[in-house]
Amino acid sequence: MPYVNIKVTREGVNPAQKAELIKGVTDLLQQVLGKNPATTVVVIDEVDTDNWGIAGEQVTRRRARGQ
Amino acid sequence: MPYVNIKVTREGVNPAQKAELIKGVTDLLQQVLGKNPATTVVVIDEVDTDNWGIAGEQVTRRRARGQ
Amino acid sequence: MPYVNIKVTREGVNPAQKAELIKGVTDLLQQVLGKNPATTVVVIDEVDTDNWGIAGEQVTRRRARGQ
Amino acid sequence: MPYVNIKVTREGVNPAQKAELIKGVTDLLQQVLGKNPATTVVVIDEVDTDNWGIAGEQVTRRRARGQ
Amino acid sequence: MPYVNIKVTREGVNPAQKAELIKGVTDLLQQVLGKNPATTVVVIDEVDTDNWGIAGEQVTRRRARGQ
Amino acid sequence: MPYVNIKVTREGVNPAQKAELIKGVTDLLQQVLGKNPATTVVVIDEVDTDNWGIAGEQVTRRRARGQ
Repeated sequence: MPYVNIKVTREGVNPAQKAELIKGVTDLLQQVLGKNPATTVVVIDEVDTDNWGIAGEQVTRRRARGQ
Repeated sequence: MPYVNIKVTREGVNPAQKAELIKGVTDLLQQVLGKNPATTVVVIDEVDTDNWGIAGEQVTRRRARGQ
Repeated sequence: MPYVNIKVTREGVNPAQKAELIKGVTDLLQQVLGKNPATTVVVIDEVDTDNWGIAGEQVTRRRARGQ
Repeated sequence: MPYVNIKVTREGVNPAQKAELIKGVTDLLQQVLGKNPATTVVVIDEVDTDNWGIAGEQVTRRRARGQ
Repeated sequence: MPYVNIKVTREGVNPAQKAELIKGVTDLLQQVLGKNPATTVVVIDEVDTDNWGIAGEQVTRRRARGQ
Repeated sequence: MPYVNIKVTREGVNPAQKAELIKGVTDLLQQVLGKNPATTVVVIDEVDTDNWGIAGEQVTRRRARGQ
């Protein structure tokens, strides 16, 4: 019954990688807490680099500097 | 003053259905808890089927199997 | 498969009211979008009035003024 | 280490405004709570006006009435 | 820079299990997407069983029936 | 109409600081985007240090090492 939300920047995550994240998190919750995979929900949000900030700065600008 | 977030898969929810969800949830909070509709906020997120997982699997794959 | 998060102030919501909210939202999603109740998840967050702001002000202070 | 999520309607917020929001919130958390900007994360979600409700009504309809 | 939120029912998750979840999710994001662990944030929310609904019903009631 | 969620570790944030955060964020949204303070909602979540991870590690452990 767990609900997991993963937020990452929108920078070319492909469907196979998303499938791996969903499988990996679901397995982890089963292993650590014995949660039933059948009702484990995982939602991935991809966020534009203009809309993500860290250290007071947009990721877009950090990427432009090679960070 | 309540805040409600509804997440569903992006599979053709139309504007009239969204309006119904917003009205329905706002009414429910007024009926059950006496909350003032004027400050009840409802946000609907539509999530790509590649980004939604249940039972360790992407919804995209489940739909492909007819689930 | 929908996921719904309801946030309200922590002001004495009782278990029966929570049950009504859960049932009401689940029914609404079935009626409007045909969603399967079996995998509809509803999470209610109760938030201290010190931690909820509207109009730039804590709800605690608004309640103290009778609002 | 704080995490801040700002949700606004998708109505033409430009990159410079997003940068200002990110900088402003990060500074606020440093000033008020002494939080380290280096690990302060800010995520801005822009939500379609069809998907945002207040007072039981879609923002799209309110805008159409000039509200 | 990813942000992950894990919601589970409040049913005796211990600190070591939380540490395992945090480590496991952070490792997963590094393996699958090459994300830097140093800025990966994980927040675990434990939710009272009265406040969590599935299939239109509180988890408290399901547990009382042995589910 | 914006909705802002601020998550910080539960380490003694006092009511006056919460009031400052609420006021500060509401003002920021008015200044940068012209948002109406009357319908700006701010919710602060305080998260136990056992439940917050960064760099794959619980904040509790980092604090124990003086970080």
